[in-house]
Amino acid sequence: MTYTLILLRHGQSEWNAKNLFTGWVDVPLSEQGRAEAVHGGELMKKEGILPDVLYTSMLRRAIMTANLALDAADRHWIPVHRDWRLNERHYGALQGKNKKEIRDEYGEDQFMEWRRSYDTPPPAIEAGSEFSQDSDPRYAGEPIPATECLKDVLERLLPYWEDTLVPELKSGKKVLIAAHGNSLRALVKHLDEISDDDIAGVNIPTGVPLVYELDEETLKPIKKGGTYLDPDAEAKIAAVANQGK
Amino acid sequence: MTYTLILLRHGQSEWNAKNLFTGWVDVPLSEQGRAEAVHGGELMKKEGILPDVLYTSMLRRAIMTANLALDAADRHWIPVHRDWRLNERHYGALQGKNKKEIRDEYGEDQFMEWRRSYDTPPPAIEAGSEFSQDSDPRYAGEPIPATECLKDVLERLLPYWEDTLVPELKSGKKVLIAAHGNSLRALVKHLDEISDDDIAGVNIPTGVPLVYELDEETLKPIKKGGTYLDPDAEAKIAAVANQGK
Repeated sequence: MTYTLILLRHGQSEWNAKNLFTGWVDVPLSEQGRAEAVHGGELMKKEGILPDVLYTSMLRRAIMTANLALDAADRHWIPVHRDWRLNERHYGALQGKNKKEIRDEYGEDQFMEWRRSYDTPPPAIEAGSEFSQDSDPRYAGEPIPATECLKDVLERLLPYWEDTLVPELKSGKKVLIAAHGNSLRALVKHLDEISDDDIAGVNIPTGVPLVYELDEETLKPIKKGGTYLDPDAEAKIAAVANQGK
Repeated sequence: MTYTLILLRHGQSEWNAKNLFTGWVDVPLSEQGRAEAVHGGELMKKEGILPDVLYTSMLRRAIMTANLALDAADRHWIPVHRDWRLNERHYGALQGKNKKEIRDEYGEDQFMEWRRSYDTPPPAIEAGSEFSQDSDPRYAGEPIPATECLKDVLERLLPYWEDTLVPELKSGKKVLIAAHGNSLRALVKHLDEISDDDIAGVNIPTGVPLVYELDEETLKPIKKGGTYLDPDAEAKIAAVANQGK
């Protein structure tokens, strides 16, 4: 027996489309993003891989992606849980900034270090600034970050994975996680035991369900890297890798 | 101190628009219904009456209404719970039938008895028929009905109200219930202590948040009938009363 985990990165957001660093800024899906979400749900339905329970981040683009995908898959009625531990990486002071401008201003090396270094976070966001989440009621009382590297994301995600998601999987439920490029990369790093260096080269396309069958004893993937429910996934991965170029 | 309860009837569905008895058939919102849902959320945001937790039925039209309204109110991230006890009244063998045709075939008296009698259910739906929910996975293991009168709805709803919704209210949370014409009428009958006869004359418009402030001791409304967050609510109530005419 195996357990089924389905990962779904949100569809294109309005800021993906504008090439801005988003992080925890709560931007909506673009029209294309909504279409990607619906398509993701249609793929789940077509393949008969139907989640029993949904986990989302606290951010609108992941929540709306899940809503649209589940509606398309006729699974809009399953139980829902949300947690900031599934949120996108907090991009610190880069939130709201244009990726190309940051790249032009700081150069390719610094740009790539902020985007893809495993353990170097960008500068922290200033408290009270336009794109900070200090006073957002959804995080009241939570120990939220002011910037994060991918390592930080994994460290806040892993307890949630172990304490909440693994027990759901072990109960036999197919679990859908609707989340973000970097929170999903952190989870994939853990599942596939990818090195700190190699994770920089891993990209996850938007709106394409990624299915992992996990061994019931070890909770490790039967097939490393899982399986995308879309024959065009490879081209979409390449598109993510080229962002900011 | 009072507790805040917000009731939201789903926006127009495709079958409302076609004048069909819907019940538990899981039809989508119409374009107008989606707009009503967004408007309902804008009203909550404008009035600053923002729910802390959402309860929905298991039906797509209530779920999607809540999704759209909460997104418009910037409360898309609140916790969500779903239960079939909030579902619309099960319309038995009438599900999928045209309201006007039923009225023409059986006459005004029988039509109104099926629509508005407190304790006379329509004939039960046949197991396995097109619009039955016997084999729907979302109700697996649940004691679901094959037809219901409003009294039946109140009887299955009341334990959920007492055991689940009241404790949430008592914890101080503003509770949003996104549900249906008849499940909300049943709850309103209970809250406002409306007689079995008088409830026939109570109609709830689609997509307009109805806010009850409840006494902290008795859980009874401070103001009987609550308050609609829309100055046009009265006209919308009249429109519901005229359905099938």
